[in-house]
This record gives sequence, structure tokens and C-alpha cells, in this order.
Amino acid sequence: VISRIEEPPADLVRAGRDLLESARDRMPVLESIRREAAASRCLEGQRISGCIHLTRATGVLVELLLAAGAQIAWTGGDEVSTENEVAAALADGGVAVFGHRGMTTAEVLEGVELTLGAFPRGPTLVLDNGARMIGRVLDGPSRYPELLAATEKTTEGSRRVRAWARDGRLDFPVLSVNDLVTKWEVDNTYGTGQSTVDGILRATGMLLAGKRFVVCGFGHVGRGVAVRAAGMGARVIVACRSAATAVRARLAGYEALSTLRAAEVADILCTATGYAGVITGRHLDRLPDGAVLCNTGHSVTEIDLTALEARTERSYPVRPHMRRHVLHDGRRLDLLSGGRLVNLDAAEGNPCEVMDVTFANQALAALLLGSGGAKEFPPGVHEVPDGQDEQVARRKLTAMGVRIDTPYAPLTGHDRMEHDHE
Amino acid sequence: VISRIEEPPADLVRAGRDLLESARDRMPVLESIRREAAASRCLEGQRISGCIHLTRATGVLVELLLAAGAQIAWTGGDEVSTENEVAAALADGGVAVFGHRGMTTAEVLEGVELTLGAFPRGPTLVLDNGARMIGRVLDGPSRYPELLAATEKTTEGSRRVRAWARDGRLDFPVLSVNDLVTKWEVDNTYGTGQSTVDGILRATGMLLAGKRFVVCGFGHVGRGVAVRAAGMGARVIVACRSAATAVRARLAGYEALSTLRAAEVADILCTATGYAGVITGRHLDRLPDGAVLCNTGHSVTEIDLTALEARTERSYPVRPHMRRHVLHDGRRLDLLSGGRLVNLDAAEGNPCEVMDVTFANQALAALLLGSGGAKEFPPGVHEVPDGQDEQVARRKLTAMGVRIDTPYAPLTGHDRMEHDHE
Amino acid sequence: VISRIEEPPADLVRAGRDLLESARDRMPVLESIRREAAASRCLEGQRISGCIHLTRATGVLVELLLAAGAQIAWTGGDEVSTENEVAAALADGGVAVFGHRGMTTAEVLEGVELTLGAFPRGPTLVLDNGARMIGRVLDGPSRYPELLAATEKTTEGSRRVRAWARDGRLDFPVLSVNDLVTKWEVDNTYGTGQSTVDGILRATGMLLAGKRFVVCGFGHVGRGVAVRAAGMGARVIVACRSAATAVRARLAGYEALSTLRAAEVADILCTATGYAGVITGRHLDRLPDGAVLCNTGHSVTEIDLTALEARTERSYPVRPHMRRHVLHDGRRLDLLSGGRLVNLDAAEGNPCEVMDVTFANQALAALLLGSGGAKEFPPGVHEVPDGQDEQVARRKLTAMGVRIDTPYAPLTGHDRMEHDHE
Amino acid sequence: VISRIEEPPADLVRAGRDLLESARDRMPVLESIRREAAASRCLEGQRISGCIHLTRATGVLVELLLAAGAQIAWTGGDEVSTENEVAAALADGGVAVFGHRGMTTAEVLEGVELTLGAFPRGPTLVLDNGARMIGRVLDGPSRYPELLAATEKTTEGSRRVRAWARDGRLDFPVLSVNDLVTKWEVDNTYGTGQSTVDGILRATGMLLAGKRFVVCGFGHVGRGVAVRAAGMGARVIVACRSAATAVRARLAGYEALSTLRAAEVADILCTATGYAGVITGRHLDRLPDGAVLCNTGHSVTEIDLTALEARTERSYPVRPHMRRHVLHDGRRLDLLSGGRLVNLDAAEGNPCEVMDVTFANQALAALLLGSGGAKEFPPGVHEVPDGQDEQVARRKLTAMGVRIDTPYAPLTGHDRMEHDHE
Repeated sequence: VISRIEEPPADLVRAGRDLLESARDRMPVLESIRREAAASRCLEGQRISGCIHLTRATGVLVELLLAAGAQIAWTGGDEVSTENEVAAALADGGVAVFGHRGMTTAEVLEGVELTLGAFPRGPTLVLDNGARMIGRVLDGPSRYPELLAATEKTTEGSRRVRAWARDGRLDFPVLSVNDLVTKWEVDNTYGTGQSTVDGILRATGMLLAGKRFVVCGFGHVGRGVAVRAAGMGARVIVACRSAATAVRARLAGYEALSTLRAAEVADILCTATGYAGVITGRHLDRLPDGAVLCNTGHSVTEIDLTALEARTERSYPVRPHMRRHVLHDGRRLDLLSGGRLVNLDAAEGNPCEVMDVTFANQALAALLLGSGGAKEFPPGVHEVPDGQDEQVARRKLTAMGVRIDTPYAPLTGHDRMEHDHE
Repeated sequence: VISRIEEPPADLVRAGRDLLESARDRMPVLESIRREAAASRCLEGQRISGCIHLTRATGVLVELLLAAGAQIAWTGGDEVSTENEVAAALADGGVAVFGHRGMTTAEVLEGVELTLGAFPRGPTLVLDNGARMIGRVLDGPSRYPELLAATEKTTEGSRRVRAWARDGRLDFPVLSVNDLVTKWEVDNTYGTGQSTVDGILRATGMLLAGKRFVVCGFGHVGRGVAVRAAGMGARVIVACRSAATAVRARLAGYEALSTLRAAEVADILCTATGYAGVITGRHLDRLPDGAVLCNTGHSVTEIDLTALEARTERSYPVRPHMRRHVLHDGRRLDLLSGGRLVNLDAAEGNPCEVMDVTFANQALAALLLGSGGAKEFPPGVHEVPDGQDEQVARRKLTAMGVRIDTPYAPLTGHDRMEHDHE
Repeated sequence: VISRIEEPPADLVRAGRDLLESARDRMPVLESIRREAAASRCLEGQRISGCIHLTRATGVLVELLLAAGAQIAWTGGDEVSTENEVAAALADGGVAVFGHRGMTTAEVLEGVELTLGAFPRGPTLVLDNGARMIGRVLDGPSRYPELLAATEKTTEGSRRVRAWARDGRLDFPVLSVNDLVTKWEVDNTYGTGQSTVDGILRATGMLLAGKRFVVCGFGHVGRGVAVRAAGMGARVIVACRSAATAVRARLAGYEALSTLRAAEVADILCTATGYAGVITGRHLDRLPDGAVLCNTGHSVTEIDLTALEARTERSYPVRPHMRRHVLHDGRRLDLLSGGRLVNLDAAEGNPCEVMDVTFANQALAALLLGSGGAKEFPPGVHEVPDGQDEQVARRKLTAMGVRIDTPYAPLTGHDRMEHDHE
Repeated sequence: VISRIEEPPADLVRAGRDLLESARDRMPVLESIRREAAASRCLEGQRISGCIHLTRATGVLVELLLAAGAQIAWTGGDEVSTENEVAAALADGGVAVFGHRGMTTAEVLEGVELTLGAFPRGPTLVLDNGARMIGRVLDGPSRYPELLAATEKTTEGSRRVRAWARDGRLDFPVLSVNDLVTKWEVDNTYGTGQSTVDGILRATGMLLAGKRFVVCGFGHVGRGVAVRAAGMGARVIVACRSAATAVRARLAGYEALSTLRAAEVADILCTATGYAGVITGRHLDRLPDGAVLCNTGHSVTEIDLTALEARTERSYPVRPHMRRHVLHDGRRLDLLSGGRLVNLDAAEGNPCEVMDVTFANQALAALLLGSGGAKEFPPGVHEVPDGQDEQVARRKLTAMGVRIDTPYAPLTGHDRMEHDHE
């Protein structure tokens, strides 16, 4: 069972502070917003319940909200991502923190519940990831009468919230900080692309050059994984269901195959689709001896673990994050991170430089909602204001020392650089 | 002055037929649609006025429409792209063709006028590029009482048509065949990317490896040019006005600079923004001696040619498509294709494999509108029907011999492969 | 039959001068050597017979030798590379030039003979490519009593000269300007890599992105073609005979297959091995319908044209440099440049920036030999002096505006940057 | 002080065996040689003293030699690479093992001494890395009267041994297993390239995309690091002293700068030259705040740590393998792995797939020397026999399931695929 972290060990707190400092160095946009928010104290009086992977990067976001004057309760919302040192440092700093690395799924849900319940009169703002916490709120709305608004940072989460809005269940506004250029390209493509390959390297130590690397799915995440795997010299094969996507994959220089045929030749197979059940028994039956299996898509469901267990004679850990399954037919399959997100489990999740941009949008949305902005939005799902993403990108460029042209006035917030051409 | 091409020379017709055959080989999707349309004759009775670059690829589209039973009048709608051989072959096949390679801007407009006027009772369908012909229609709508609908294939053109719709001037439906995955990635990125680099190679013969290659603009076209220039070993620098775009350019591995600073170090500078006046006198004053200047963006307006002339002591052709400007200060700048689209002027425009996909969407839209579908759409701008782009991509994969998984039912026509992820 | 070019047409001369000027702009190293040689006149009294592809780049080398005070006779030594305009301009400048574009093989040999015989007492220096001219000299050495030395610029040529030296037939020194870092990487890899892809683009106009591109051979040329084809988005497959090379190809991210299996899936197949008979009837029988065939390796012999003719029902030109062979079994194969070097025939050979480096080594070798250095070398094959290649590279960097560290003294001429490491 | 590992803890032995198994899976060439050697027992009676980084990959080589019947003593020969688990497992298997992870430099030397002295009558074969052990042998040759021969696996080591041979000090043959195609490209370029980037990712967790990544040196290692860093999206800058190398770097698409100017813009700076004192106080004075410093070249000497300490106000560990130096002027520099080889310290050294090829050559050389071959070689440095590298590559391809053409007979062991070309 989960309870609020009280009096964390001093050495854990210290280690957490070091991690937070090292993250802050790489998150200059959050730092610039934090400085402004610490001066304005614009979240004074707000109570925030947050449910986003409790990594060091998230810790920097939490510190910003704290500096802006809010009271805060937080939980990671998943099994593997919580960094205990960061949790300790935040708890020491006055945040009500729930959860630890390696929770059971039941404990994860319990953490969400406790984080919502941390304030006697409930939160005024909810910051969510995957709509887990918003879902809990909607299951019992009467308990949170003072809730002003929420933010949601994932595609899948926004989709779910929109469905609830269509069903008339949503009685507060939700800002989606997901449909942003920077989010798609920076976070999903470049962030997850690198951290997934990093996770595979740490878990396996294998040479990627010359390996056949199958990516299932070719959305932003799939593309990011493909470009980085190719960057390490792998021969990338894309398996996807959309013909338009397959054409794009081919033109980008990759092979495009059905999942079944791709599985037959995979040295490494990585799922990145956002769907459950992408790799089933049929595919497991085709994978060659020695293949490495992992997932960087949605939660733990993309690889059918039940089907894998059913085919397994015996299994044992070969290295940290890597378990060898010797199948009844003698083939060996190496499953990474138990099918969970390999970039969070075996590596460190997305690099701080990337989360800097995503969380800056999250922070600006929270600051807007908490400093009087929430009442401007009717119940329903809304995009972040026009120009916010561009503002975040400007801050990022400044931090990188990059100077570009000033925008044409009036800048519409929409990248109008596409143009007609044969 | 322009007049309908009558009795074209037999050798020109023969050369045009060869060009059309070589194009047809690389356009299997259009070919598959043509076979079906030739059987159904679903455009019988339609009169089509078309205004799209008159290349061999467009010729294959025109042949398809002809095979479907339509009467056709056509003009290229720009100064440089018309292939006289193709014009001759189409004229010989019964199409009313207007214009030739190397028209003046006045002649281009005259060609549009004549193509609209080629049928006594006016066209029933208009196929447009950049809204040039639709604009002419709206200037005098009473002359085309039987016009059912139009299609428009560019971003800029769709934008203009939407503005007219907002102003209440548009009294017929326009299908925009532009906001399609395949169009953006296939045509703009991969097609224009290759043909622009191809044009530069043909015009200059220079080694790209190790050169500083500045791309102004980083939309789909700019990105395509960047990836191909880097693929030839150039050191790519992106100049753009949107901070979010600049962040993307940096993460993609390119340098991002202001146009002014980029100009200072450019060995080659290529505009791809879709805006006029991107390179002005200020930039020309900074370019190093020997720099190559070209444009693959919008028409001829991206480089300020007046400013260039004002700085030019003397100029002379060095090679086909390349004119050397010796400036008053002694620097030499080599302008390609007179600042017109270098991929159309110095190379062959986008490869047929690419236009196959774009024109397949164009053809399906025309077949839909002309076989009773036009009355389903109210006046205004509409997207092509859900799933059409995916259908085109499926046909393309079949032609390429690529087999992928069947889609999840129901496929929404939207690539749902993005997903939530830290 | 061939004869010395006399009184070439003025417009051809003028066009040749323009080509030479445009080449000179891109050959700053040769230009810097030319200035020094024009001051020292160090080749005064020398008679040079040259046999190197007569392109504009070679023309700039010839001008340098002329400026240094030598008398010169020249021939291109192959069927396709002679640029008639350049030949005219050089002839007008006092060089004895033999040959033209499109010679028969017999005429090529005749040109070599005449160039050797252009001086009553024979040449004092021979500049060779492929050992064609040196071979002729050795067949009748008594005719060239005043010959001091020769240079040879190709691997294959050096190999042949070394064989003659082992047989005791070589009675003068030959400087091999081939085993140079800059030659391998700059000329063969980057030069031929780009010009081969350029030739294929010009000859076919096809989209390379997504195509299966087979390269036969993975020496410096093969690697250059592979990296550039991949840079244009092609899916590259390497066919080679050395296992060590195949391992390298796989680690570089390419597929490695036997030639037979590669042929089965080729959209484009390009030979780059330096061997004859690489593509035989067995391979032609496997190529898919519509495949494009070309050669950038050794002369015209890599593809067995006799075997192709034997399988051809009819053939006709589709575009310049591209001939369609309709085989007895109905398949169509498109042969580029008649199997000759596609980069020289359909494009412009290696870019001038690249030949600048190769020819600078050639020029320095000739200046050394012709200004008293020849007597320092005994008969046999010799490398160019230590440090010459580094000197050429320094000049190149200066011209590019690149400044690097000064070398450690004493620099050995050997790149000692390799080091021990696990 | 160091002593032979006796009775290692059972759990360490077990962990070592697991590591060896996981390595063996990725080293199929060694495995195929081991099977043959275990049958022939061709090293029966030989006593081998080895001095090569004691990683799991080396462990697989040791097991092979053991299976062939030899008695073995081993030490890692450096400070950081010994995997204690592997050392334990080998010790448990009967090998005389000396040393552990984290030795002092004095202990490293002591380990070499003890390994040579492990056999009363001295070794019959020495397997060396960097000529450390051979150097000790030459300091006191009378002690090893039965020594037949040695092998040396690095460039630098071979260079040192050749110098001793020139001085007349070498009285036994040494096989250099270094000048091999597979060694250069496979081990140094692809192996070290990946493991260096892997080490940087593990030590820093930073996003590489968009970072300025300076590589000092552009030999095989430097090139491997450059290509992999670029593959992760970094903007690579090469600093080197050879102009020919700088030209190659530019043509490969990288920036080339002097070390001083490169240092000024470095986000990450990685030395890979093989020289000492590459980064001195002058460079440290220019590095920007927040720069990351690391070394993957020669030992620990490439970065002048004394100069760094002299400028350091205070330093503290931020993460494992990363120490932050706050300089007197306030700038912060993050040094990875204390300036030691970052790929061995922060990651796992070169991947087993790569060491499979290098060690296969090592193994074949040892088997040859130990089964009667040593007496075929006079004292001095020799290359491994013609064709051995090709044989290793063939075995590797077989293990990868790659089939290529059979070689032209007679294969010379030299890749003759280079060819003449303009």
C-alpha cells in the first residue's frame, strides 16, 4: 500500500537534489519561466494534483509550480518511472508525494486516488498524463467542487477526454498540451527516438550496425526510433497498417513489410504503435532464434505477454532489463523491460532538453489556468493559446544561443512555410 | 500571342508520345485508374479546362481524363514548365492546348483565358493549380453557367479560394487535393527535394559535398531540399522565421541561422519559403564571392531580382540555366534559372513516381465530381473524401510490390499511429 | 580517322573558353600552382604527351602545363569523355589535340599513337591514365629516346606498369599519383559517387527515394555510389565477392547479397567493380521488368553487352543516354549510356572541385619530373614524394577558407591518427 | 598490491558465467573456432600469458584458448576495463587471473609482471595489447627462454614493437593482428563509434540531437564517433592536424576547425587522436559553460587533467561517470570517466559482435603460432597470413546468414575492388 512520503532519508534527498540540479541545467526554458513565476507568485492559493511520470524532469516542473506559490500533491501514474531520489527531494521540499519505483498496477491507482485526496477541499488544478487522474475525477466529481481546470499532455489522453466531453460528462475545461509542433517533433520524435535506442543499448550492449531492426508503427515515435536506429547503422524495417504511412516509410529509405514478414527477419523488434496486441503468438512463432523484443509505445500492452509465456519453456535474466525466454521449440527470445516502455525502464526516459519544451508548455498552461485564465474557457477540451508554442520555442532558441529572423507580422502561430509547388 | 496548337509537327508529336510512354511507365497508379475509367467512360459529356504545369506527368493525367470520355482544354499556367513535345502529342490527340515553353507572363494569362474559353458553353469542370483559373472564373462567373465544380492542388491556391469563399464570391464547390499525407510527404518533400538538388547539379555541375548549403524555409519543401542536400554531403544551414521550425531544424541536425548570417557563409543559397522578397539587397550585399543563388519556392518572387540587377556591373551566361552576375564591388554571384523554379527549369520537375500519387488524387477527385458527385458538395472548399488518399497509397504499394498488414477496421483515413508517451 | 585539330570554329573555341573559365573557378589549387609555374617557367623545353579524359577539368591542367613553358600534345584516351569545345579551345591555344567525343575504339588507339608522335623527337614526359600510352611506349621504346619519365593516375594502370617493371621492360621512372589519401577519398568516393548518381538522375529522371539500388563492388567508387544513392533515399544493396568487404557493407547499413540475388530485386543496378563481365546472362535473366542498368566502373566491359543483345527482341532510345531493351521474354531493361561510364556520358564526370585535387598532384608530379627531378628516380614505379598530398590538401583548405591546427613536427606524411583501443 | 585470484565468491563466478554466456551468443566466429580447437587440442603444452582488457569478450577468447589445451595466465593491462565477474569465472575455470576493476597504474604494471611470472619456466606465447607485456619481456629476456612468439593487437603497440625490432632488441617473432580490414572498420570504426556514443549517453543522459559535438582526431575511431554522433542528430565538428584528413572530414559533411576554434563552440568534446595532450589549458580556457569533456582515444592522456585541476575551484560528482568542475572563472565543465576511455568506463567497451572478429584473428594467430607455426617466422614483426582476415569475415557472414558471391580465384587477400576511373 501507498502512503505519503514523510521524512525521507537525508542521503536520498541529497541524491535527489543533485539529480534535480543536473536536470535543471538542461532545462533552460523551464528555468526562465520559473524565475518569472517566482517573482509574480501567480499560483498563490492554487492546489495542484499532478499525475505525470515522476522523473527528475518532472521534478523541475514541480519546483516551478512550487516557486509560483501553489500547494502541490504528485504521483507518477505508472509502474516504472518514479525516481525515488527525486520523490524524496520533492517530499522534503513540501510536496505531498505518493508512490515509488516498482509499484504494482493496484498501487499506481491507489497513488492517483491519494494524490487527488491530498487536499481537504480537493485540488483546484489537475495536471494529467493519459487522463488517468481526470478519469478518476469524473468518476466522482462531487468530491472536487473547487476544481477549475486540468491539463492533459498525451494524444491518447486527449482522445479519451474528448470522448467524455462528447458524452456530456466533462464539466470543467481541459487544456490539451499535446497538439503542438514542438511536442510532436521534439518530444516524441527526437526525445523518444534517442531514449529508446539508448534503452536498447543499455539493456543489451549489442552492436546495432548491420542488425535488422523492425519498428512496428511509424507515427512520430516510430519515426524517431527508425531514424536513430538507422543512425546507429541498423537496417530498419517498418511494419505498419496504413498504406500512406508505408509509402512514407519507403520514401524515407526504409523497408516496409507486414508485421508477420518483418518478424521473420528481425534481429530486434520494437513496438511503437500505441495499440494493444501488436505482437501476438503468430508473430512470436516466426521470430528467429536470438531475436530481441521490446516496446516503446503504449504502456505494456503492445506485446502479448500471455502468448509469450505460453510458448516459454523456461526464462531467466541474462542482464538487467533483459530476460531470456527459451521457447518450447528451442528458440531463444530476449524480452527487454518485461515489455514495458524500454526507454523509461532501461534508460532514463526522454532527455531533459526535450522535456524542457514539453513541460514549458505544460507550465505555461498551468500558470494561465491558475492565474485567472481558467474561467475564460468553457467546459470541454481546448488547445493551448495561439503562439504559446512559438513563445516556448523562442525561449529555447535563446537558451541555445541561436538567433533567427524576426517573424513576419502578424505571426499566426501557424507555420505557413508550406507552399505551392509542382 | 497565344493560339490553340493546330497540326503540330509529326516529329514533335512522336517525341511527345515517347516522353508520355516513359512517364506512364513510372505512374502505375494513374495507369490503374485509367484502365478503370476507360471502361466506365464516366466523364462522358464533361468539358474540362485545366491549368497545371504542362509536363509529361500532367500529360498522363490528361490522357486519363480523355480516356474517361471528357473533352479537354489545357494550359500550363506558368512561364517555364510546358514541354512542347507533350503539348504537341496532346494536341494531336484532340486536346485543345494553349501555350509553349518560355511564355511571357502576359502570354501565360492569355493562355488561361483561352483555355477557359475553348468550349462555347464553357467548362463543366476546372482543374487548377494556384487558383489562377478559378480566379479568372470568379472575375466573370456569368460566362460559365454550366461549371459544376473545380479542384485545386496547392496550399497557396486553397488559401486563396478559401478567402474568396469567406467573401461570399464562390458559388461552386472546390475540392482541395492538397491537405493529404501523400501530397505533403511524397510530392513536396521527396519529389521537390530530389528535383531541386537535381536541378542544381545540372545547372552547376558543382560538388555538393563539403559545401555550405543554405535553405531558406523549412516547410515540407525546405525539409526535402535539406535532407537531399545533406544526402549529397553538403553542410546544410536552415534560415527560417518560426522559432518552432528553427528548433526542429536544429534537432534534425542542421544549423539554424538568421537569413542575414546564413547568407554570409553560403556557398549555395536556395529559397523555399513560399513568400516573396526573402532574399533582398541586404542579403545580396553579404553573400560571398562565387555564391550560387536559386529558388524552388513560390514562382519567381523569392529573390529580389530588381535588387540584384541594381548591384550588377555586368552579367553573362556561364552554362545553361546559370548566369553570372559580376557586382559593382567585384563579387560574382551565379543565379540559376533566372530565379524561377530551379527544379522545373534546370531539371524535369518532380519525378513521375511522385506526380503519380498527387495526380491520382487529382484524377479521383475529377472522376468523382464529373460522374455525378459535384452536386453532393455545396459551394465552398472541401477536402477530398476520407480514405481516398489511403486508397491511392494502397494502389501505389501494390505497384511497388509492397505488402503490409490490412488496416484495423474501421480505418478512419487518419493515421492514428501517434500515441502517448513520456 | 583522327587528325590533329586545326583551325577550330571560333564559336566552339569561345564556348570552350567559357567552359574552362567555369572550371577554373572551382579549381583553386591548380590555379595557385599555375601562378607559381607561370612565374618559374620550370617546364621550358619539355615536350609532354598526355592521355587523360579530355574534359574541362583536364583542360585546366593542360593550361597549367602550358603556362609552365611546356609544349603539349593531348588525347582523351577513351570513347566518350572528350568535350569538343575544350578540345577546340586548347587547339586554338597551341596544343596539339587529337580526337573528339564519340570516337570508335580504333580511333581512340589511333589518337594515342598520334599524340605520342606529335613531336619529331618524341615526348620528354608522358602523362597517362590507365597505362594506355605507357603501354604503347613500351611496345616501341626505341622511338622515344628522350623520354625522361611518366606519370600514371589510376590503380589499374599502376598495377599494369608494375607488372611491366617486374618483367624488366620498364626503362624509365613512372610516378604513380594514385595511392594518395586525397585521390581515394576525394576523387573516387566523393567525386565519382556524386557524378554517378547525377548521371543516373539526368539519364532517367526517376525518383531514387524508395528504390532498390544495387551497387556491384564496394571499393572506393562503390562506397561513394552507395552513400550518395542512400543520400537520395534509395535502399542500397551491395553485391561483392570479398567477405571482409561484405561485412563492411553490412556494418555501414547496407544489405549485402550475392550478385544473383541482388539482381532479382534491383530497381537500379550499377556496376563499380573494375572487373569485366560482372553482369552476365545469368544476371540479366533475373532482373525484374523495368530495371535500369548502368556502369561506373571499368570502361564498358562490366556489363556483358553481347549477352544483353542476345536476349533483346528490339531496342529503342527512350530518352538521351537511355535505351530500352525489350527482351524475348517480354521484360524491359533500360540500359544507360550503352554500358559506358554513366558519370562521364550522362553527366559531366567528376566535379571540378574534385579533379582540382587529383590534378594538382598530377601537376606537381609533372613539374617535379620536368624540372630536373626525373633523374632522381631509377626506372620503376614510384610514389609521389612524401608530403606532396598533404601540401595539396593544405592548399585546398586555404581555398575553402578552412583553418585547422598546424601539424605536429615532424609530419611524416602518414596520417598517424589511428590508435590503440579495445 | 595484486595477487592471483583464488577461490572467488560463488555468486561472482555465477554472474561471470552469465556474462560469458551472453557474450558467447554474440560471438559466433569465436564459437566456431572454439569447436574446432576443442577437437584438435592444438595448444596442448602451450603456456600463454595474456594482457588484453579483461572484459566478457576477452573472456570468450580465453575460454577458446583453454579449450584448445593451453595453460593460461591473464591480466587486463589497464585501470578500468576488468570485469570482476568475468575475472572470477575464469579464475574458477583454472586460469591464473591477476587484477580487478579500478586498479592503480602501479597495480596494472604489477599485474603484467605477475602474469608473465605465473609459469615457472615462463610463457611460450604472449598475447598483447599496446605492447605493454612485450616491453616487459624485452626488459629481461633471459627470464623467458621458452617464449616462442607473441601477438599484438593495436597500431600503437605494433609501432613500438617495430621500433624495438629496428633497434635489434626483438629476438622472437610478433604477429600483428592489427593491419586488417576487419580490425579497422569493424572494431575501431563501428565498435568504438557505437560504444563511445553509448558511454556518453549513459554518463550524461543528454539529448545529442542539435548539440555541437567536437571530435578531435579523424582516424578510424574519430570517424566512427563522428558518424554515430551525427546518426544521433548531433552537429559534428572535426578538429585535426592533417590537411588531407580535414578535407576528408569536410567532404564527409562535417565542419573542420582548429581545436581552439572548435573548443569555443563545443557542447560536447571527445578526443580520439591517440596522442597525449590534445586538450590543454588553452582549450579549457575557451570551452563554453556547461561543456562535456571526454576521451575515447589513447589511455587517459589526451586531456591535460593537471591543467583542468589548476583551473578548478571545486568539483563534485553529478552522476556516475560524470564529475562537474566549477572553474575559477565560474564556468562549469563536466568531465566524463575522469578522462579515461569513456566507452570502457561508462559503457561496456566495444560490443561483442565486433570483438568476435578482432579476437577471431587473435585466436587464429595464437593457434597458428602455438601449433608449430611460430618457427616459420623469423624474429621481427609480421602480418597475419594472407587470407586469414577474409576467412574470419566468411565465418562472420555465415553466422549472419549472409551469402555473397564466391571470390574470383585466386583471391589475393587484398581487396582488389578499387579501380581506375576519372
